[in-house]
Amino acid sequence: MNLLLLFDEDFLPDGTARLTGRRAQHAREVLRAEPGEVLRVGRVGGLVGTGEVLENSAGLLRLSVQLTEPPPPRAGVDLLLAIPRPKALKKVLPAVASLGVDRVVLVNAARVEKSYFDSKVLAPDFIQELLLQGLEQARDTHLPEVLVRERFRPFVEDELEAVLGPRALRLLPHPPAHQPLTATRVGTAPRVLLAIGPDGGWVPFEASLLEAHGFQPFTLGPRILRVETAVPVLLGQVALLRDNIPPPEGPLRT
Amino acid sequence: MNLLLLFDEDFLPDGTARLTGRRAQHAREVLRAEPGEVLRVGRVGGLVGTGEVLENSAGLLRLSVQLTEPPPPRAGVDLLLAIPRPKALKKVLPAVASLGVDRVVLVNAARVEKSYFDSKVLAPDFIQELLLQGLEQARDTHLPEVLVRERFRPFVEDELEAVLGPRALRLLPHPPAHQPLTATRVGTAPRVLLAIGPDGGWVPFEASLLEAHGFQPFTLGPRILRVETAVPVLLGQVALLRDNIPPPEGPLRT
Repeated sequence: MNLLLLFDEDFLPDGTARLTGRRAQHAREVLRAEPGEVLRVGRVGGLVGTGEVLENSAGLLRLSVQLTEPPPPRAGVDLLLAIPRPKALKKVLPAVASLGVDRVVLVNAARVEKSYFDSKVLAPDFIQELLLQGLEQARDTHLPEVLVRERFRPFVEDELEAVLGPRALRLLPHPPAHQPLTATRVGTAPRVLLAIGPDGGWVPFEASLLEAHGFQPFTLGPRILRVETAVPVLLGQVALLRDNIPPPEGPLRT
Repeated sequence: MNLLLLFDEDFLPDGTARLTGRRAQHAREVLRAEPGEVLRVGRVGGLVGTGEVLENSAGLLRLSVQLTEPPPPRAGVDLLLAIPRPKALKKVLPAVASLGVDRVVLVNAARVEKSYFDSKVLAPDFIQELLLQGLEQARDTHLPEVLVRERFRPFVEDELEAVLGPRALRLLPHPPAHQPLTATRVGTAPRVLLAIGPDGGWVPFEASLLEAHGFQPFTLGPRILRVETAVPVLLGQVALLRDNIPPPEGPLRT
């Protein structure tokens, strides 16, 4: 945990924060923060800053909080993601949050096993917990929005435009394509929307429907990747193409 | 499993292959391959091709094998990787194999917990099993070479040059750096060697020693990533910069 996340309800009227539960336990058992020590904190949806420990006793952490800095810039990316197997989703959601994705629509697809819908990983509380892990890791405060949709075609035809916006560059990593990902359009697009299929890929009907809705197919190369590998690979590549790295603030260390 | 991997000892003098154990079980229970069906196969360290099922009975799979195609091209990348926690290593090694990395040196570092050396994940058989999973996923046959080194400084000073080669572009993702990764040199380097630190990063002594040995620091941006996320992000970015994707062989589907 590189950032202790605070929620609105943690704040008292005097501006101090009062934590119980998992975060208080972490502060006591892992960070072993003594009164006077300063922890890195962030307010969910808000700024990051410091929290001076006022008290760290059994089950209670009290902090004097100063929130002064913005969290890292957003990646400008949304994902339309065929629901991965639960074990993969537990890896993907923290990664997605840590990489600054704004929205994830977890959608059914022909090659998604029906049993995945019964997984506890799709419960809103479980999803939020996985996202918070990613934010704590990356020192971000912006919770991605995650939607689950059980019907692929109605989502693409009726909802996609409203939920994921008309202005994004829509990209479809799809093995039959031959065109690699290039900077040509990615670098200047206001947003990027990636449609990442299930193990085995989108079936032809799904790929065609996505292409009919503006998704441009490209190849990731001849290697077939697991979704938990493909997601960070793709997000890293899009970030690089969008130059989503702050400009140099000082000389390169030599 | 997108590729059934065959070892030299699986082959009979008549050119057929005879498999037992986990792979035969997979062919029977998951693939349910009947005699006459054709599976995608590859010979470890060699070509890929097809295997026609001759027999698929309890615990025994016999195949008539035709090996005709090269596996995917190599990424041209090696990793010097501070030993991650065992749970992360179990994710990183399959990903590394699936992304075509040639060599991984798992090295001790100041922020590596000593207990990691006792983990069963570092046993050669366990490492090989994780690598094979990655190859089966990516349809590759080339097993990465993995070395474990318990002493950081002697490895960097005395062994690195011989083991990882003098001609690689050496890169050090390191938060204090301000320079982002660019195509300037990555695109044309004969090989790339990435030095990826542990959770919490390389300590200053380690980073300085690496820089003294030619590693150029760069920033991944303000987000602190888990090693299992950072590795695919970085390998994806290096692949993109090296344009490690085969040239278009046909028109882009529209």
